Amino acid sequence: MLTRQLQQQARRQAGVMIRTAGIHITDKEAEGIEVVDFGLSRLQKEGVQVLTLLQTERISVKVLALFPNQTEPEHWHPPVAGDPGKEETVRVISGTLYFYSPGENTFQEGFLVKGKEHCYTMRHELVMRPGDQITLAPGVKHWFQARDEGVVMYSFSTVARDALDQFTDKDVVRITKIIE
Amino acid sequence: MLTRQLQQQARRQAGVMIRTAGIHITDKEAEGIEVVDFGLSRLQKEGVQVLTLLQTERISVKVLALFPNQTEPEHWHPPVAGDPGKEETVRVISGTLYFYSPGENTFQEGFLVKGKEHCYTMRHELVMRPGDQITLAPGVKHWFQARDEGVVMYSFSTVARDALDQFTDKDVVRITKIIE
Repeated sequence: MLTRQLQQQARRQAGVMIRTAGIHITDKEAEGIEVVDFGLSRLQKEGVQVLTLLQTERISVKVLALFPNQTEPEHWHPPVAGDPGKEETVRVISGTLYFYSPGENTFQEGFLVKGKEHCYTMRHELVMRPGDQITLAPGVKHWFQARDEGVVMYSFSTVARDALDQFTDKDVVRITKIIE
Repeated sequence: MLTRQLQQQARRQAGVMIRTAGIHITDKEAEGIEVVDFGLSRLQKEGVQVLTLLQTERISVKVLALFPNQTEPEHWHPPVAGDPGKEETVRVISGTLYFYSPGENTFQEGFLVKGKEHCYTMRHELVMRPGDQITLAPGVKHWFQARDEGVVMYSFSTVARDALDQFTDKDVVRITKIIE
C-alpha cells in the first residue's frame, strides 16, 4: 500500500524525470502516471512509475521511470486466451538501466534486493544506455534496476494485460492499494 | 527517383530534426533513416523521412520527420492475409502537424499539393501539436503535412508492411529508387 501523499509525490517526481529526459507529455498524462509498489509497500526499493501513452486492443506504449536504486521485480508475460502473450521492447531514454534476463550468469553491476534474493533468479546482465533496446518474447522472465541516477525508458509492446503478469515473488500484488 | 547526394542530405537533415526534437538515436540508426519520395521525384513537396526504431512480426515503432511544407501522400493500410491491417497511432513530438482523415470537411490551415488536388480526398483537418496523438483503424485513408517549421512524430503500429500500403495517387511507387 501507498499513502495518497507518497503516490502524489512519486507521480510528480516521475513527471519531472520524464520531461527532463526530453519526452513531451501533456499535463493530463502527467497526472495519470501510475505509481506501482507491487503490493510490497516499499516503493523506493521495489516499484516503478508508469505513464501509458497508448493502449489499444493490439498495442501498448508506456514510459517507465525508475527512481535511483529502484528495482522492478522479476516477472513474465504469460500467454492468455487467443494471444501468445505480451512481446515487449524496452528502449532506454535517459540514465543507465541494469536489465536481467535468461542466459549466462554475468551479474556484476547491479544488486539484489536485500531479503528478496530468491525472487531475482535471472542473472544475465545487460547494462543499457540511451538508445539501447532489447526485445523480449512472451514468457521470458526479466527484471530491471536503476542505480544512482534513475532511468527513463519506453516500453513498446503488444497489448498489455498487467493484471495477468506473473511474478517470481509470491507476495506481489499487481494492483497498488492507495490509503488516504 | 532520388540522387544519392539528395538522399544523404535529406537523411542528415532528418537526423538533426529528430535529435533536436529530443529523441536520442544512435549513429547507426541515423545512418539508416529512410528517405522516401514515393516514386514522385519531388521529395521536398511529397515525401517523408522514416527512422524505424523497432520492427517485429507484431509491432512497429517509427520516427517520421517531415520537412517544412512536405506532404505525405494520402494512403491507407489494407488487410492482408491473416491480419486485419495495420493499426497506427501518430504522436507529435515537435512542430505542428496538419492531419487529414475521414469526416466533415474542415480543411482550412493546410494546402493541397498543386496539380495533385484529386489525390488528396480526405478534408477533415486536425491541427496536432506536441503530445497530441490519433489512432487510426486499419483501412482508414489519411495524409498529413508540415508547414513552416517541419514536424517530428512517432508512429506506433502493429506490424508495418509498407510495400502493401495503398495510395490514392496511382503514380506512387512505395520503393524509392536511388541513382548514383
